[in-house]
Amino acid sequence: MDVVVPFAATEPKTRLADALAASERESFARAMCSDVLSAVRESGHQPRVLATADVAFDAPVSVDDRPLSDAVNAVFEEAFEADPDRDGVAVVMADLALATPEALDRLFSAEGDVVLAPGRGGGTNAIVTRHPEFRVDYHGASIRDHRRAAREVGAEVTEVDSFRLATDVDEPADLVEVMLHGTGAAREWLLDAGFEIETTDGRATLPRSQE
Amino acid sequence: MDVVVPFAATEPKTRLADALAASERESFARAMCSDVLSAVRESGHQPRVLATADVAFDAPVSVDDRPLSDAVNAVFEEAFEADPDRDGVAVVMADLALATPEALDRLFSAEGDVVLAPGRGGGTNAIVTRHPEFRVDYHGASIRDHRRAAREVGAEVTEVDSFRLATDVDEPADLVEVMLHGTGAAREWLLDAGFEIETTDGRATLPRSQE
Repeated sequence: MDVVVPFAATEPKTRLADALAASERESFARAMCSDVLSAVRESGHQPRVLATADVAFDAPVSVDDRPLSDAVNAVFEEAFEADPDRDGVAVVMADLALATPEALDRLFSAEGDVVLAPGRGGGTNAIVTRHPEFRVDYHGASIRDHRRAAREVGAEVTEVDSFRLATDVDEPADLVEVMLHGTGAAREWLLDAGFEIETTDGRATLPRSQE
Repeated sequence: MDVVVPFAATEPKTRLADALAASERESFARAMCSDVLSAVRESGHQPRVLATADVAFDAPVSVDDRPLSDAVNAVFEEAFEADPDRDGVAVVMADLALATPEALDRLFSAEGDVVLAPGRGGGTNAIVTRHPEFRVDYHGASIRDHRRAAREVGAEVTEVDSFRLATDVDEPADLVEVMLHGTGAAREWLLDAGFEIETTDGRATLPRSQE
């Protein structure tokens, strides 16, 4: 299956600004994307990066500087124009630092014209579409909009229930999930940067040790 | 399988204080617990509430006012004393308002001496143990401690990758997940209470309409 991994190449992960400096956010975002690319490959598929500017990854990179939804919809359009009977096109976000080949395999092998993996806070973290008319709109609580958009084109929708795919890493509180459940470069990056798990009465947090 | 649902009967859900008044938190906590009990029953098992004080639910209720870990460990001990060859004992938290019979079935049918469903922030939201010596300690980042505790008694550990089971409803930001993905009484409760989904550039939030 054609698996597209959108990557914001310029000033990525601004919502991590309270935890990481700008150059660190860029480096950490690249580590997460590398983990996603590895997991896609290990699941038996070939990933392609869809970046907003030219970047180097261990995978083919296409550049499209339009907003995310437009760029993804252009991928869908081209893919089904080239082969209307294709077995699907997948979009997997580059910040799913907990993604494993097993979790991705559940996504790719789920039946349905449109397969959605919800993200926390109403996002849509991964999609498989086998319907040539389905289009994305990542603005707002996109999972609701994508359910509706699929219904509107007559597509049968399946949702994949995965904590690993639901955990996009956007905010400082998300970093603890990478430390606890990550298995790749992003977790190593956080360890090298001096983050440590701190447990309190509520959820665990991830303060940074004094350097 | 014996499925125990621990329920804090006195002043539940204090971390929701910014969103709900005390009496509302109690009523909402009961709605979530009812949803969990229904989902357990629909998955083909008989739930039992393990409450800190006497409460009425549509299920048998045992009262144990000790701290959560002690109360759960007493359940494990009694269960394996009564029947060392039992097919397992499960603990499912009462605030898993997104739990579905399908998600619970993945938990109950997963192989392994100890099956863990991680919660956000390092918690452990559901457990099946088939090992008579495994004990819980819910303090801190319990998922790490439970992995270790299982290894220490020689138990093989499996983890269930479920967004629905990972989403315990503790903080105001969690309420939006109930609105977007809930299917039962807890979601109805929030709708009746005047909550509405608001979308911004980040994750969706759940402000309350003026009454």
